[in-house]
Amino acid sequence: MQANYSALTPLRFLERSAAVFPDRTAIEHGSRSYTYAEFAAEAQRLAKALRARIAPGDRVAFLAPNVPELLIAHFAVPLAGGVLVALNTRLAAHEVKYILEHSEAALLFADAELLATVDGVAELGGPAAEVPVVVIRDAEAGAATGAAAATAPAATAPATGAPGDAAGVVRELYADLLTGAPEGPDLPWSVDDEKSPITLNYTSGTTGKPKGVLYSHRGAYLNALGEAHHQGFDGATRYLWTLPMFHCNGWCTPWAVTAAAGTHVCLRAVRPGPVWAALDDGVTHLCGAPTVCSIIADADEAHVLVSPLRITTAGAPPSPTIIRRLSDLGVQVVHVYGLTEVYGPYTICEYQTAWDGLPADERAAKLSRQGVGMVQAETARVVEVGAVDGLKDVPADGETLGEIVLRGNNVMLGYYKDPEATERAFAGGWFHTGDLGVMHPDGYIQLKDRAKDIVISGGENISTIEVEQAIVSHPEVLDVAVIGMPDARWGERPVAFVVRASASQLTAETLSGHVRGLLAGFKVPREIHFTDELPKTSTGKTLKHELRALAAAEGAR
Amino acid sequence: MQANYSALTPLRFLERSAAVFPDRTAIEHGSRSYTYAEFAAEAQRLAKALRARIAPGDRVAFLAPNVPELLIAHFAVPLAGGVLVALNTRLAAHEVKYILEHSEAALLFADAELLATVDGVAELGGPAAEVPVVVIRDAEAGAATGAAAATAPAATAPATGAPGDAAGVVRELYADLLTGAPEGPDLPWSVDDEKSPITLNYTSGTTGKPKGVLYSHRGAYLNALGEAHHQGFDGATRYLWTLPMFHCNGWCTPWAVTAAAGTHVCLRAVRPGPVWAALDDGVTHLCGAPTVCSIIADADEAHVLVSPLRITTAGAPPSPTIIRRLSDLGVQVVHVYGLTEVYGPYTICEYQTAWDGLPADERAAKLSRQGVGMVQAETARVVEVGAVDGLKDVPADGETLGEIVLRGNNVMLGYYKDPEATERAFAGGWFHTGDLGVMHPDGYIQLKDRAKDIVISGGENISTIEVEQAIVSHPEVLDVAVIGMPDARWGERPVAFVVRASASQLTAETLSGHVRGLLAGFKVPREIHFTDELPKTSTGKTLKHELRALAAAEGAR
Repeated sequence: MQANYSALTPLRFLERSAAVFPDRTAIEHGSRSYTYAEFAAEAQRLAKALRARIAPGDRVAFLAPNVPELLIAHFAVPLAGGVLVALNTRLAAHEVKYILEHSEAALLFADAELLATVDGVAELGGPAAEVPVVVIRDAEAGAATGAAAATAPAATAPATGAPGDAAGVVRELYADLLTGAPEGPDLPWSVDDEKSPITLNYTSGTTGKPKGVLYSHRGAYLNALGEAHHQGFDGATRYLWTLPMFHCNGWCTPWAVTAAAGTHVCLRAVRPGPVWAALDDGVTHLCGAPTVCSIIADADEAHVLVSPLRITTAGAPPSPTIIRRLSDLGVQVVHVYGLTEVYGPYTICEYQTAWDGLPADERAAKLSRQGVGMVQAETARVVEVGAVDGLKDVPADGETLGEIVLRGNNVMLGYYKDPEATERAFAGGWFHTGDLGVMHPDGYIQLKDRAKDIVISGGENISTIEVEQAIVSHPEVLDVAVIGMPDARWGERPVAFVVRASASQLTAETLSGHVRGLLAGFKVPREIHFTDELPKTSTGKTLKHELRALAAAEGAR
Repeated sequence: MQANYSALTPLRFLERSAAVFPDRTAIEHGSRSYTYAEFAAEAQRLAKALRARIAPGDRVAFLAPNVPELLIAHFAVPLAGGVLVALNTRLAAHEVKYILEHSEAALLFADAELLATVDGVAELGGPAAEVPVVVIRDAEAGAATGAAAATAPAATAPATGAPGDAAGVVRELYADLLTGAPEGPDLPWSVDDEKSPITLNYTSGTTGKPKGVLYSHRGAYLNALGEAHHQGFDGATRYLWTLPMFHCNGWCTPWAVTAAAGTHVCLRAVRPGPVWAALDDGVTHLCGAPTVCSIIADADEAHVLVSPLRITTAGAPPSPTIIRRLSDLGVQVVHVYGLTEVYGPYTICEYQTAWDGLPADERAAKLSRQGVGMVQAETARVVEVGAVDGLKDVPADGETLGEIVLRGNNVMLGYYKDPEATERAFAGGWFHTGDLGVMHPDGYIQLKDRAKDIVISGGENISTIEVEQAIVSHPEVLDVAVIGMPDARWGERPVAFVVRASASQLTAETLSGHVRGLLAGFKVPREIHFTDELPKTSTGKTLKHELRALAAAEGAR
């Protein structure tokens, strides 16, 4: 052992917090709670059980909402020498099958409510159907989903969660796995190589097969410290798990909150009642897509908070309306930007006191930008699209569109089993996000659009984000998505899907008039569809291809 | 360039803060102040000037109080590829000579008030006398030291600070060096190898000769993030520079406060008036030896603070009286422990809410312990003394004495040009502090004694052996022992027991004068006891605990 070197690993954070604050509450989940000593002991127990089943480097998949077992797995799986694969709970059976087979998962842990998906995988056959399943039974399952869920198919899953009952696949209960864990000394909270993989996260690619994004112990450690720094985590932190842990490992927050010895408040599903109950119980921080912000702001339970709450949000810029409404409730909203490939957030819209004096709309415009590299990250760049050899920055004029590229310890090890895609993504020594944006004179980047979401109408580029922001600035609009549809005359035309506030009688004409007052005429959608909700990924990104299909169907009628 | 790796370096922190908060005040120093943009620009200017003078890896020495130039040098010297050697301003000329020669410094920057020391080095001759000197003239010099200093020899130094005037050594003014800096593009805020050296700090060793402790970019980066986390630095931080930057690079705080984009408030000397003026101007954090705590608590200006202040203190546990007095003023005191070899603090006495209910004395006893490894450190151990092969922990009973050993990214690269001492210090894969302590059942360590016989007085390490050697160099002294005794103001003070030659009439005053000619003033014992013989073991080792009892009895009389 070398006296003056330790391989960086977030495992150290749980070792430390359990040693220093053994009796502090680490995890709350309904009626269950764990102290830090218990958290560490559970991680050791699970790790020992896993060690008896897997070889070093094996992938271990989890299909579960934000339950303590998944949080514990963020430590237990790497502690056992494995690589955690946290699956999106909304995936269809064939998607889960693909990931299990691509990752060659040695084990699948599944929440009892998600066994319908697992059954679906079993029915599809193939190697995925042979992966042994460990069933997590969570007493909060019924409580969280409420009466409505009691009749939903998934709620019957616990009954099918008995060992070895479905499709011939070995199934055992999580509790039994732990009970059967071998005794023995604790596993060391350390790794030999800080660049070894810790987790594997599959991107929800809007097109094609999902890619496996490999994270390292070093990257997870540094990003966790960065999150703790920017979110301001300390021992008094009560972090509410509204952001799915399966999304970029919850932006490394399982490790960050643990480093600060704060308290994790778990949550199976983001619904207004339980979220507001948690806020009233002293939650200090939460993260999530703008949807989470809307749910909090629009809830019947909404009221001015006694203690301050900080929401870190990503996926799309929070609308000025939402920011103002949350601010009135005593909530500070911080906007960040990142991707699965960079461990979640990479940039943060750092607040400048000089903005205090700006008119509300100008201030909102500043706040809606994606910002600057975090303390553990590097400086983000916006470069000319396609210029791979010798990346060339676009002018920092806030107008010239380019591709956002990132680099450093925040960037993934690579795409699992896909060296070509990795090489392509890392061309020129920078990770190419595929996101288009501009660089402002103050060094803040702003996302203008995903490359494929630009609408080109009559030869003009229309940023759908710009149009969306214009529409959502109407006080009666809750949510919006703008897409491009083929148009015989203009090549493409913008089409808007709008969710109105409840009881709003807003018409397309009125809304068009509002937008016309804000944008050039060619950007104003001629076609506006009102809808009750927008199809989204679990991470809050609108599924625009579904809207395109919908618009095509509408157009054909 | 690799897309997914950056060598860790604290240089990144200044690059980022200057890019994100260019107009925020980074440094205040009397009537001078620097924004973050100016801070970075000054670092670039100085680095470019240095690049024209030094080769990569060259050592650049600074002899200066906490002035902006030294803070800037913490970035500029490594930016230029050099290694910063920040010298203790209280060192005697022959000590500075030794360090300049051992480090083979290419340049010496000296504050004009410290030119008497530099003149002393010139007079001693040898290679140190040939090191080119750059003179820093600080307009705050007079203001800080007050009227008394105006008549002191050092105050005449600015006059001797004119280029090339003393002892034939090349001297130039800092301002001229900067003016002459070559133009050209900015140097990159990055390094190729994160394990390359960034600074070299000399300790007062036990053998008399100071040892050079090498820090790495990686260690400085991680420790800075750890300091920022534990002290809670953020953009609103106003950090008062009471801790000398020449002590373990101010515990990595030049980099930590910069990472958080807080404001550095510089200070030439720790005096009650200026300190309290700064506190009233909204200082949020400061660090220092218990002396600093005493100065603040005992000042005539002391009053209840409007905004909270956190003091992080080390060197000796703060006394319960001081903690209570500071608490009454609205000051939170946090106790940390470390050594030069571990970048300053390694453990922190983390507060436990369970202590709230303890009686005051029991609580004070808890708070006086050295605590647990910080978030970026490893777990501290207390091991059986002397058991190098296979370190064996002493029982965690709060009673069994052992040696405190530490490891990980907090530990120095090694002793400069002293592989044997490095190997000895790193025996068994752990850094041996030489400090004796106990492990409490709750995992907190407590220092019981300095095995190395170091006296820590006013935050300065005094090697008792060095003082003993100075005393025994007097022809009428036969034997001597120096011990540290608790001191309300200085933490500890050196006390000497001296055996005179028979018939010698040597007085304490004469002996003091002799020692003062050899050592820095703070090392000279104010208390000298003459005795007929020293208590010793059969092997001739002085029984210092018996002397301590004797000194305590003398003091009680």
